[in-house]
Amino acid sequence: MSKEEVVLLGFWASPFCNRANIALAEKGVAFEGREEDLFGGKSDLLLKSNPIYQKVPVLLHNGKPVCESTNIVSYIDETWPSPPLLPPCPYGRATARFWADFIDKKVFDGGNSIWKSKGEQLEVAKKGFLEILKQLEGAMGEKDYFGGDSFGFVDIIAVPLTSWFYAYEKFGGCKLEDYCPKLYAWMKRCLERESVAKVLPDPEKVYEFVINLRKMHGIE
Amino acid sequence: MSKEEVVLLGFWASPFCNRANIALAEKGVAFEGREEDLFGGKSDLLLKSNPIYQKVPVLLHNGKPVCESTNIVSYIDETWPSPPLLPPCPYGRATARFWADFIDKKVFDGGNSIWKSKGEQLEVAKKGFLEILKQLEGAMGEKDYFGGDSFGFVDIIAVPLTSWFYAYEKFGGCKLEDYCPKLYAWMKRCLERESVAKVLPDPEKVYEFVINLRKMHGIE
Repeated sequence: MSKEEVVLLGFWASPFCNRANIALAEKGVAFEGREEDLFGGKSDLLLKSNPIYQKVPVLLHNGKPVCESTNIVSYIDETWPSPPLLPPCPYGRATARFWADFIDKKVFDGGNSIWKSKGEQLEVAKKGFLEILKQLEGAMGEKDYFGGDSFGFVDIIAVPLTSWFYAYEKFGGCKLEDYCPKLYAWMKRCLERESVAKVLPDPEKVYEFVINLRKMHGIE
Repeated sequence: MSKEEVVLLGFWASPFCNRANIALAEKGVAFEGREEDLFGGKSDLLLKSNPIYQKVPVLLHNGKPVCESTNIVSYIDETWPSPPLLPPCPYGRATARFWADFIDKKVFDGGNSIWKSKGEQLEVAKKGFLEILKQLEGAMGEKDYFGGDSFGFVDIIAVPLTSWFYAYEKFGGCKLEDYCPKLYAWMKRCLERESVAKVLPDPEKVYEFVINLRKMHGIE
């Protein structure tokens, strides 16, 4: 193949898609982003490329599909090795993968439980979400980034999820920064990076999107 | 350090622990297995080594803990590279990680929903589990192992879960082999391997264990 063809099937508000967007930007890989119409009708290419989940993101590299966002970021890191996103030593890599998996399992679902609930359930959801954020803050410790001094794998997995935090605050009636100042300092540090700043959506727009999601879920 | 110290905190019936057991056996790594008393009281070492989940397995390599079974198998593969478990090319690795993640998300919970339910719910659980197995069988295709001709990463992630299939059959009143003959042929192929045969528990014993789990869950 004379020229590499890299296509990313995505959706602007999806933190999972934005992981792939940031990873490609960090590697300086030119690619074509194709916005999927998740509510009007997914493309045949998406359905064919990800028959198991039928979800974005899908990375198509010379026509071959890679699915699931954390897997896509690993693939990008191995295919275009410079600059590396995962640390070089097996123990550092295992620690990064542990936290990436923790974030995958907990953060998005935990945050969404806030805008999906009301009353007593909402208080439980908020408490649960704050505990998750405190655990993440514990993983960061006194470091600038999850992996240490430089922006890397876990930061890419985590930072797109923060675009939704403003919506969680609006529906949860709380200011997350008061509970997790170090996590917010990290978030602002990440947002100063071009690869992150140019990819992540305006939190106000995500908030409006979540208002519509709530209507679609029959909440309010 | 003059000599490597490798300790695995585990539990005999746990398919997740048995992934680590098989991976260490494949690599020929000598280690000390310590059986945890999950119902009587977990060891301080387990609670300290895995503060986030407090679950087995935990691999302690020269005292440093690695948690979460798929992460442990990746760590073992990177720390002791020969023979390799993941394929060498990024696309093959991404495909293996996709299916490992699919198995993590679906198979154990899908199977457990069989022994946790009754009546109409049981029929739904059985149908759901069979669909998962058919998807897995589709991933295998006509190959001998998930990765091709040789036993590898996805086989290690998947095969310990099959120790529980007999219990699912007993509580589900079905013969899984009739629905997924290729998956059963793969399972038997894996069981001929020493690393697998010496690690996996007797399915009859797992069945007895599940009878007790059902009692603990107040079922029957």
